[in-house]
Amino acid sequence: MLSMRPPSTTLSRPLIWPRRGRLGGAAAPQYVSAAAPAPALEPAAPPESVSFPILVNGCTGNMGLSVAEAAALRGLHLVPVSFSSREKVEKTIQVGQTDIQIYGPSKREDVVSSIADEFPDVIVVDYTGPNSVNSNAELYCKLGLPFVMGTTGGNKHLLYKSVQDSKNYALISPQMGKQVVAFVAAMKIMAEQFPGAFSGYHLEVLESHQAGKLDTSGTAKDVIACFEKLGVSYDMNRMVKIRDPEQQLEMVGVPEEHIQGHAFHLYHLTSPDDSVSFEFQHNVCGRSIYAEGTIDAAMFLHRKVQSKDSKRIYNMDDVLREETCHKAY
Amino acid sequence: MLSMRPPSTTLSRPLIWPRRGRLGGAAAPQYVSAAAPAPALEPAAPPESVSFPILVNGCTGNMGLSVAEAAALRGLHLVPVSFSSREKVEKTIQVGQTDIQIYGPSKREDVVSSIADEFPDVIVVDYTGPNSVNSNAELYCKLGLPFVMGTTGGNKHLLYKSVQDSKNYALISPQMGKQVVAFVAAMKIMAEQFPGAFSGYHLEVLESHQAGKLDTSGTAKDVIACFEKLGVSYDMNRMVKIRDPEQQLEMVGVPEEHIQGHAFHLYHLTSPDDSVSFEFQHNVCGRSIYAEGTIDAAMFLHRKVQSKDSKRIYNMDDVLREETCHKAY
Repeated sequence: MLSMRPPSTTLSRPLIWPRRGRLGGAAAPQYVSAAAPAPALEPAAPPESVSFPILVNGCTGNMGLSVAEAAALRGLHLVPVSFSSREKVEKTIQVGQTDIQIYGPSKREDVVSSIADEFPDVIVVDYTGPNSVNSNAELYCKLGLPFVMGTTGGNKHLLYKSVQDSKNYALISPQMGKQVVAFVAAMKIMAEQFPGAFSGYHLEVLESHQAGKLDTSGTAKDVIACFEKLGVSYDMNRMVKIRDPEQQLEMVGVPEEHIQGHAFHLYHLTSPDDSVSFEFQHNVCGRSIYAEGTIDAAMFLHRKVQSKDSKRIYNMDDVLREETCHKAY
Repeated sequence: MLSMRPPSTTLSRPLIWPRRGRLGGAAAPQYVSAAAPAPALEPAAPPESVSFPILVNGCTGNMGLSVAEAAALRGLHLVPVSFSSREKVEKTIQVGQTDIQIYGPSKREDVVSSIADEFPDVIVVDYTGPNSVNSNAELYCKLGLPFVMGTTGGNKHLLYKSVQDSKNYALISPQMGKQVVAFVAAMKIMAEQFPGAFSGYHLEVLESHQAGKLDTSGTAKDVIACFEKLGVSYDMNRMVKIRDPEQQLEMVGVPEEHIQGHAFHLYHLTSPDDSVSFEFQHNVCGRSIYAEGTIDAAMFLHRKVQSKDSKRIYNMDDVLREETCHKAY
């Protein structure tokens, strides 16, 4: 059995560096339980001053549903239909004040065509399934519907080609958490500027996600690619992927309420002589960071469409850069 | 008493994420004690093909001595004199095969003048004391001796002005650990590219150094400045500075043999709703990373002097960039 938890006899060893949760600082020393942070609060973002129709496809999935809920909370006009990548799911789900009718793939062209007529300034968000990525993107492009693609998988090259050929607007990103995107961008820049700077360093990577996630974290792969450029050798088979809820609770310290939806990543680098170590972690509980990022992406794309921007394909770096350039000081 | 160690009753709480030390990976799960990594090995760098005379001032201090030892190991020609920032230290210390005569400040001008005559291609390295930074730099500049300034403190503006006015060559860096420099550079770039991206995040910083270090970590200050630009509010008084050896052993996990020389840093960021956290650590045991970086800096500066480069003042980013651009792929 895969187990990285030290034997129970070693638990008398002290806890190294305080972990998750806020510390009181020197003036008010305080230790907050690592495994039980304060429950995540609903983000209290005020309704946006700009509103537009938003169609969220994949509302039957956790991620799509979270995005639809965030859209409603932020005052966007939720289009009352959505399609699923699975047939035979016809039903209605309620999000905020809106009853959303769910359709299977066979009806999507009719449904989306009527949406395009009724809501000419709609932004589509796609969180369906890997098998639908390319066919959905082609449909959006055919109908000229700008879309945010949050679904991972499919043929990436074909996805970009569909958008380019149609001159449609799209924002494509497998990672919608803006701060995670900023972190990965920083790692990429470090790798570009200082290739080989960590030559000879030893890398260990651990990632923990809800048991339903079968594939390896794409973000971990992106970060590892940076470390490889920095001179670190790494065999992807060595990555420790934790999917067992018990291990997540006891070893990783995932709060119990987020066992079904979390993304924890740890990268540990050690110098060849073991005298120096670096560690990077990005730990996400729940889906609010992604849902909020997706709404930000949709709003960004809406602005680009309205201003008829000459650039047509965007990613989250563009969103971050535009949002943050106003905050520069 | 400042204590961040959780009460002993909480030690039955599991260890969160494996810490320092290498893990065996999924195929060979293994837990290595956090507090007792393999002892640091002497770096096995081969003697350099290029050699030149190197004068290390401040050899009576731990850092200066480490640099002199690294210089000898890497085949550089150690000039057999050194001066200390303290008077009344006349003595001889042996480094490798070289007996180094130590002089107090009052004799430094005579000593350095004769060195300049005898070793025209010498590179000076300075690890004296904060009070000597400016007067030493002025002396090196007056005599046209290229120098690497590893000593922190003094008047930074005046230091740069001395070099500029004299057109001397100098490499000035308060941080000589190349990988730490790369990490800080990445944080700076992230802050420049995405100012405000972590707006509302809560920051906790802990740093642990040997008890003899009285001031706050300059590297921590640099990294915090980046987080502030990223939108995080931080009161420097909240930084947890650990100087007590017992806490370092039990709470921070510093190996016992490095209590007298280590630099551990931890930055923990939490999103406003507590659902997302980031953590960055850079932990250095001993001084070998700095000593090796200083020798790399001296070799870099020697090349610049030999090639009569038009640029005269450098930092460790320049060293890293030049070294790593050859490794780019």
